[in-house]
Amino acid sequence: MSLPYNPDNFKQYQPVIEAYVKARDQAMQKFDPEFYAACIEKLPSQHELDTQPINATEFVTARYGLLSAKEAAIVNDFPLPELLSKQLSGQLTAVQIARAFIKSAIIAQLATNCVMEFLFPEALEKAASLDAYLQQHGTLRGPLHGIPVSLKEHMCMKGHVTHASYVSLLGNVTENTCVTIQMLADMGAVFHVRTSQPQAIMHLDTDNNIIGRTRNPCSTMLSPGGSSGGESAMIAMHGSVLGIGSDIGGSIRAPAAFANIYGLRPTSKRFSGMNAISGGKGQESVPATMGPLARSLDELDALMNYYVNESKPWLYDPTCIPLPWDTKPELPAKIRIGVLFSDHLVTPFPAVTNAMKHVTEKLAQLPEFEVVDLDPYWLSEEEMTQAIDTVCTLYICDGNRQQQELIHKSGEPLLALTEFFFNPYGGNDALSVYENRKLNLVRDNMRLQVFQRVFPHCDFILSPTYFAPSEQPHESFYWGYTSFWNLTDYPNVVFPTPYGHHVERDATIPTLRDNRYEKVAWNGPTGGQLRYDSSKYEGGPVALQLTGPRFRDETVVAAAKKITAAIGIDRR
Amino acid sequence: MSLPYNPDNFKQYQPVIEAYVKARDQAMQKFDPEFYAACIEKLPSQHELDTQPINATEFVTARYGLLSAKEAAIVNDFPLPELLSKQLSGQLTAVQIARAFIKSAIIAQLATNCVMEFLFPEALEKAASLDAYLQQHGTLRGPLHGIPVSLKEHMCMKGHVTHASYVSLLGNVTENTCVTIQMLADMGAVFHVRTSQPQAIMHLDTDNNIIGRTRNPCSTMLSPGGSSGGESAMIAMHGSVLGIGSDIGGSIRAPAAFANIYGLRPTSKRFSGMNAISGGKGQESVPATMGPLARSLDELDALMNYYVNESKPWLYDPTCIPLPWDTKPELPAKIRIGVLFSDHLVTPFPAVTNAMKHVTEKLAQLPEFEVVDLDPYWLSEEEMTQAIDTVCTLYICDGNRQQQELIHKSGEPLLALTEFFFNPYGGNDALSVYENRKLNLVRDNMRLQVFQRVFPHCDFILSPTYFAPSEQPHESFYWGYTSFWNLTDYPNVVFPTPYGHHVERDATIPTLRDNRYEKVAWNGPTGGQLRYDSSKYEGGPVALQLTGPRFRDETVVAAAKKITAAIGIDRR
Repeated sequence: MSLPYNPDNFKQYQPVIEAYVKARDQAMQKFDPEFYAACIEKLPSQHELDTQPINATEFVTARYGLLSAKEAAIVNDFPLPELLSKQLSGQLTAVQIARAFIKSAIIAQLATNCVMEFLFPEALEKAASLDAYLQQHGTLRGPLHGIPVSLKEHMCMKGHVTHASYVSLLGNVTENTCVTIQMLADMGAVFHVRTSQPQAIMHLDTDNNIIGRTRNPCSTMLSPGGSSGGESAMIAMHGSVLGIGSDIGGSIRAPAAFANIYGLRPTSKRFSGMNAISGGKGQESVPATMGPLARSLDELDALMNYYVNESKPWLYDPTCIPLPWDTKPELPAKIRIGVLFSDHLVTPFPAVTNAMKHVTEKLAQLPEFEVVDLDPYWLSEEEMTQAIDTVCTLYICDGNRQQQELIHKSGEPLLALTEFFFNPYGGNDALSVYENRKLNLVRDNMRLQVFQRVFPHCDFILSPTYFAPSEQPHESFYWGYTSFWNLTDYPNVVFPTPYGHHVERDATIPTLRDNRYEKVAWNGPTGGQLRYDSSKYEGGPVALQLTGPRFRDETVVAAAKKITAAIGIDRR
Repeated sequence: MSLPYNPDNFKQYQPVIEAYVKARDQAMQKFDPEFYAACIEKLPSQHELDTQPINATEFVTARYGLLSAKEAAIVNDFPLPELLSKQLSGQLTAVQIARAFIKSAIIAQLATNCVMEFLFPEALEKAASLDAYLQQHGTLRGPLHGIPVSLKEHMCMKGHVTHASYVSLLGNVTENTCVTIQMLADMGAVFHVRTSQPQAIMHLDTDNNIIGRTRNPCSTMLSPGGSSGGESAMIAMHGSVLGIGSDIGGSIRAPAAFANIYGLRPTSKRFSGMNAISGGKGQESVPATMGPLARSLDELDALMNYYVNESKPWLYDPTCIPLPWDTKPELPAKIRIGVLFSDHLVTPFPAVTNAMKHVTEKLAQLPEFEVVDLDPYWLSEEEMTQAIDTVCTLYICDGNRQQQELIHKSGEPLLALTEFFFNPYGGNDALSVYENRKLNLVRDNMRLQVFQRVFPHCDFILSPTYFAPSEQPHESFYWGYTSFWNLTDYPNVVFPTPYGHHVERDATIPTLRDNRYEKVAWNGPTGGQLRYDSSKYEGGPVALQLTGPRFRDETVVAAAKKITAAIGIDRR
């Protein structure tokens, strides 16, 4: 069943949408009309960006000419500790930092369309107050003093419209602020942008009926991933230092991977998601979690340390666990990396297998790693089919009623990936509570299988983040490489590799399996002809995923640091 | 709707039931025929126990004459550390300890009918192996070396029938052992008894179609509480040092309170419930948890310390949180005790109000406490109605289908309290997943209300455990004082008071509210005449409940120690 698209009803929302988008665009012009004119003049047209594999991350370099040398240094060169020390020493002010990042955020928006709402006056006011605080006290306000942080739009902000990409919510001025926003604000963060997410917040892509699609900064024809695709685009464009996304099926990890940056999906209940809008409220069979995206693992680690140990989310959100962030996690002298080339369900595209191979070979040469092939221990094709059937069903087993209410109200059309999510394999009947409970037991068993059959053989699991390199827009049909870990709730870190897609090298089709997930991935949901075309993935990075024991997020980050050092991947 | 009682089908199970009970009874005779004969000779008859308010805890004293002075000292006088040190010094052997506790467990069974299965040969064999280990190594096998621990029967034991009081499962020889049992075994615990629980494991009372009702050791006409009523009776009878129960609505706390001992319902996911049988598998809106019952807070604290810090449940059960048990929890210099005389829904019986008053007055006199009246901050009658409606509905919102399958299979008759649980207020339709999710949000809001409105005013919440003193059998109709905390998942400790029920003093009926929960509590489920009759509660203890912030179980135990010291309550 697909939802009734109601053009007459939706037409009434058009002026609201236009006003919303206009306000965003005017904020850019108003901030610095001259800079904005230069951007419009210099940047490729929207048509060019949509039809050519352009690397937009170039646009924020000094040589491109939109940012001054100083601005470019601020947004490109100084990691979090340096931005803090340079404020303390008087070399930079929070206002200077904010202005530089506002400019790169404007470039990010014009290149990738990743912004829902700009918060420039608030950001500059906050930055000025931080400068005054530092002047007066000689100390920083907190560990994120003057650090520009971008926020996925569905996180509520008091006094602002929060719509979560539901057109029906464009008038929804929220009363509460997301707990995580408040915590970051108290630590000195400066918020200058709220970023895009897809319709229903349930695509591994980012497109909606309010601002349209977001582009991949590494190759603008491609998708930035989703649902936190506005975040990944913004951070990869150096429009912010850190960003907060959310993940219930891959929504932090696919975007981080597609945009060639870092992302952490923490074990659930370590990061507060309180006061955010979603169409799955009260669904807890597959736990959603918020988490950070960043340009380096050090910054991601620092954020988690501050967030957990200094800000203590459990003081604000009673669902959070008071488990400290271990800043000195122990790793074994020889780290056993279990490698999973395939999940036994969907064969990765050649570029992904190539990256897995190169990383594995590299690690196998180093004395600090032991590479373990997980193939014999991993779940069978039959078990994986059950696992992925289960997670897909658990998302939608209210018959999509809550989602329908939010979408249907405005009559907005369903995007193809929303339709696919609502009805992935031809069935989306509402389940009974009894059936939901049975599926929870299937989930528990899958978690236990990984625990009892896989982790005895390795300390961490290295796998693809997604079966393809950064995906084409509107084609992210198989989530299994990420959603399996939401079902079972093991923490994951995503990190870039030096091994991106190569059009010629990666043109050969491997031997494929015969199951419906393989068909969806390689042929698309209608089956039929192979959809894979190597030329369509030009410029697409490949990032990998590292998974560890539940609640040992710190050690997964620490191990990922060692792996990225081994493969020569540094700050983006 | 009530379930079809099928006498013909049920009749086929009669021989199985008889064989099961006979095996239990023969184990007692076989252990020591002379001792058994003395017990039968000396103890009151079953009829006397059921019709007189007999204090059965007398039966395990040396003066009663069934136990020798040495046996009585072992089961009555030596707390956990002393049982360990006396083994180390050679004053006691594990076999001596096991034999003494087996004897008191036999007395417990004959007086209260609290045992499902005896494990005497296994217990003696384990004890002997521990003695040999100590002989050989000069050290204890673990922190529970030779400590008799009783286990609620629904915890699976490999190779043993585990039926969870479902007649249909009397042939269910389980393949797995409950993770918690394995952990305790590895620490040296000796298991000699598996204890009773009610039909469906969902009464605050203990009666079933296999062994019949369990009695309250303090006053044998009364109920021992439930669903861990076999545990509370066993421990109060000094038939074991420690016991493990489980709690999804009050099932550790009501029994601990009714039997005048101590109990802890930990925050969920700190104690493993893996590999136990229940009729609510996969239900996670209201989290169930296992937890300990004990004769002192020190022993309860020690068990949690060993269980969490030494045995580490997360190494065996991936749902458990690796949060250490804080052995030096900080308490404020002045502890703010928020007192809740009434939950605004059900007026406690006079004995309970009297105990609350005495304890509160005592604490108010002491400089280390500040007593805060929570009445103005607590949820309104309307909010509490919603909370209790919600928790009652969440239990049964699969339309009781899973429970029905387990019960219906044998055709066993529904006990009145099972019928009440299945259909508490005239409605037990299966909900949709959509409705279940909405109720999860109501639950989350209740948790937040306590967090934001109540805890700012106090460090701990002191309240009744149950609206009555130890309840009469088959009359535990209102669970709200405990189940509210399952809904919101704040940890609780139950501790005895010196202020039990007094037939004359507590005869006066207070002014009652006009809501259905009040009616159920005071008049019973059919409404009609007042069911309260002070004379029926003779000998019933009143225990109170202390609640603290989530995951701060240690501090709740620590605060309860201070309160019990203040009111002069020591080891039972």
